[in-house]
Amino acid sequence: MVSNKTVLFDSIPNHEPVDSLKIVTQQFDLDRQLAPGEAILKVEMLSLDPYMRSRMRDPSIETYVPPFTLGEPIDNGGVVIVLKSNNAHFKVDRKYYAGFTLPFSEYALVTEASNAFYTDITDAELPNETLIGACGLPGKTAYYSYKQLVRGKAGEKIFISAASGGIGQMLCQLCKMDGLKVLAAVGSDEKVDYCEKTLGVDRAFNYKTSDTRKELAAFGCDIFYDNVGGKMLEDVLDQINVYGRVICCGQIATYNSGAEAYGIKNTFQIVAKRLSFQGFITFELIPQKPFHESKYNTIEEEFMATIPSMIKEGKLDVKNHVYNGIEATSQAFLDLLRGDKHGKTVIQL
Amino acid sequence: MVSNKTVLFDSIPNHEPVDSLKIVTQQFDLDRQLAPGEAILKVEMLSLDPYMRSRMRDPSIETYVPPFTLGEPIDNGGVVIVLKSNNAHFKVDRKYYAGFTLPFSEYALVTEASNAFYTDITDAELPNETLIGACGLPGKTAYYSYKQLVRGKAGEKIFISAASGGIGQMLCQLCKMDGLKVLAAVGSDEKVDYCEKTLGVDRAFNYKTSDTRKELAAFGCDIFYDNVGGKMLEDVLDQINVYGRVICCGQIATYNSGAEAYGIKNTFQIVAKRLSFQGFITFELIPQKPFHESKYNTIEEEFMATIPSMIKEGKLDVKNHVYNGIEATSQAFLDLLRGDKHGKTVIQL
Repeated sequence: MVSNKTVLFDSIPNHEPVDSLKIVTQQFDLDRQLAPGEAILKVEMLSLDPYMRSRMRDPSIETYVPPFTLGEPIDNGGVVIVLKSNNAHFKVDRKYYAGFTLPFSEYALVTEASNAFYTDITDAELPNETLIGACGLPGKTAYYSYKQLVRGKAGEKIFISAASGGIGQMLCQLCKMDGLKVLAAVGSDEKVDYCEKTLGVDRAFNYKTSDTRKELAAFGCDIFYDNVGGKMLEDVLDQINVYGRVICCGQIATYNSGAEAYGIKNTFQIVAKRLSFQGFITFELIPQKPFHESKYNTIEEEFMATIPSMIKEGKLDVKNHVYNGIEATSQAFLDLLRGDKHGKTVIQL
Repeated sequence: MVSNKTVLFDSIPNHEPVDSLKIVTQQFDLDRQLAPGEAILKVEMLSLDPYMRSRMRDPSIETYVPPFTLGEPIDNGGVVIVLKSNNAHFKVDRKYYAGFTLPFSEYALVTEASNAFYTDITDAELPNETLIGACGLPGKTAYYSYKQLVRGKAGEKIFISAASGGIGQMLCQLCKMDGLKVLAAVGSDEKVDYCEKTLGVDRAFNYKTSDTRKELAAFGCDIFYDNVGGKMLEDVLDQINVYGRVICCGQIATYNSGAEAYGIKNTFQIVAKRLSFQGFITFELIPQKPFHESKYNTIEEEFMATIPSMIKEGKLDVKNHVYNGIEATSQAFLDLLRGDKHGKTVIQL
C-alpha cells in the first residue's frame, strides 16, 4: 500500500470554484493482482484547462462535456508512467500522454476503456509540460481551428483574446507564419511584452488598463478568435469590420458568472455587418481532412508530423506555468480562471 | 401647381418613433420644364419596412444603411406612374416599382441617378401591394436568404420568428415546399391561424401567451431564421440542437430599445453546441449565382422567373396590410414595429 493523494469534486460552485475541490489521501495497492486489461499508472503531470469549469455543474444540465461526479476524482489530461500492466496497450516503464480521463491522483488504475485516450510518448524528446500544452489539447485546439476554421490569409487582421494562454500563444504564432496582422489582448504588461517580443504579434495590449474598443478601432479587425466572451465580445461586435468572422473557442469571462453573466446587447451588428460566427470543439476537428492542400489524411496527422519538430527546432515558442504538487490543484485552477498566471497551466507531481 | 403631401424626418427617436415623422403640404409644379434625365412621378403606393427604423438615427453613427436627413422626406420602396419624362428609362403612363429611394410624397421629381432603382412593372398583372411585398423587398429577402443561406433539407426543423410578416410568410411557404418542418412564432392568435391554416406550417404559437422555450423543446430546432433578436434569440440558443444554424435577417425587438436593449447572456452555447451564425443584407445576395443547380445566372433572375407566376397561380399566399393615405405613415410604422397588424405593411395613396 502507498498513500495516494487524490482531488475530489466536493461541491458545485455558483461562481468561482473556491471550495469545490478537496484533496484526500487514499490508499493504493501497488501489489494488487491485475485483471485482464488493467494497468497501474504513476502520474507525472496533470493538465488544467478552462473547459473543466463547465464540468463542475449540476449533472442534470446537459452540455458538451460530461459533468464531474460529486465525491469522485476530477479528471483531465496528463502524463503518466506505467508501473504494472495486464494490457498490451500499456507497456511497463513507458511514458504516455492522456488526452482525457486521467484522474487527478498520484496513482491510477485504468482498464481497456482508457486505451483510446493514451498515447505512448516515451520517445517524444520534449518536456512533459510541452507535450501537455503546445503538443496537447491547447496546441491542437489552436492548430485545428486555425487550419480548418480561421483559414487566415496574409494581410488579414485577426484579434486574439487570452492571447498568451495555451491556445492563444500557438495561434498567434500560426497567424504570423501565414502573414496575418495580429492584435493580442492579454491581462498583464508582462504578457504584452511576451506577445510582442517573443510571439511576434503586431500589437498587444493589457485589456485591464487599455480600452479594447480604441485598440480595435486603431488596428482594425477582420477576424476575432474568441477565448473570452462577455463584454469583450460586445466590444468586438461594434468594432469588427463588415463581413467579419468570429471563431468561438471559449468564453472564460462567463464560466464563473452563472445567472449574472454579462448580457450582449449589440447582436444586431451580426445583421448590419453581415458577420458570421462559428463555434467548435476540438475533438470533432481531429478526424477531419485538412481543408487546405496537405499530404496528410487528417488534421491530427498533419499536426503530429509538424508541430513537435518545430518546437524542438525552436521555431515555435511555448510558455507554461508549472505548479508543484497535486495539493496545488485548487489554487492553480482559480489562478487559471482569473488569468493570474502566464502560459499553459500544468501540475508537476 | 398641385399640393404635395410629404413625410419629413422631423426628430431622431430614442425609443419608439412616435414624433419622428411629420406630414407637410408642399407645392409641386407639374408643368415645370424638365432638365435632361428628369421625370415626374405620381406615387401610387409606398412600402414600410422595419429596417427603416435604423435610418432614423444620429447621422454620425455608421451602419449598413444611410441615415434619413432631418427636415428631408424619408424614402423607401413603392409603386409609381410616370406623368412626364425627359429620361428614356421612364416612359410616360407606365408603372414602375421602386426598390429604394422613392420619397414619401404624392409627387416626386427624379433624375437619372434613380434609374437603377426603378423597374417597369406595367405588365406585371399583380396588385401593387403584392409587387411591393411578396415580389418586392420582403419576398426577395426571404427567397434569396432561403436559397443561398438556409439551404434547408427535407425533414430539418426550422424555427421562424415574425413568421406571418412580409418575410416570414414567404419563408414559411418556401420551407414547406422543400419538406422542412416549420415552427412559427407570431404575435396574435389570428396570425397563428393564418400560419397553420394558410401557410401550412407544422405548428405556430403566439409568443405573447405561449412559452417559447417549451415550444422549442417540444418541436425541436435545427435552424433558426431570426427576424426578432433579443430575448427570443436567447431562448433559442438554449433550445436549439447541436450544430444548429442561425440565419440573422433582422432584430425588430431591438430596434426601439437603444441602450436598454436586452442583453443576451448565453452566447457560450455557440461554443457548447458548435453553432453557426450568418448575418446578411438582401441587396448583396441579388447578383449571386444560385447556390443550388439552376438554369438562371443570378438568384434574382430565378426569383423573377418563378415567384410572380406562382403567386398568380395561387401556389403562394400573400397577406398585406394596406393603409389609406400618406397621412397614415407614422401610425403605420409604429404598428409595424409593434407587430400590431398582420402582413406586409403598405400605404395606398
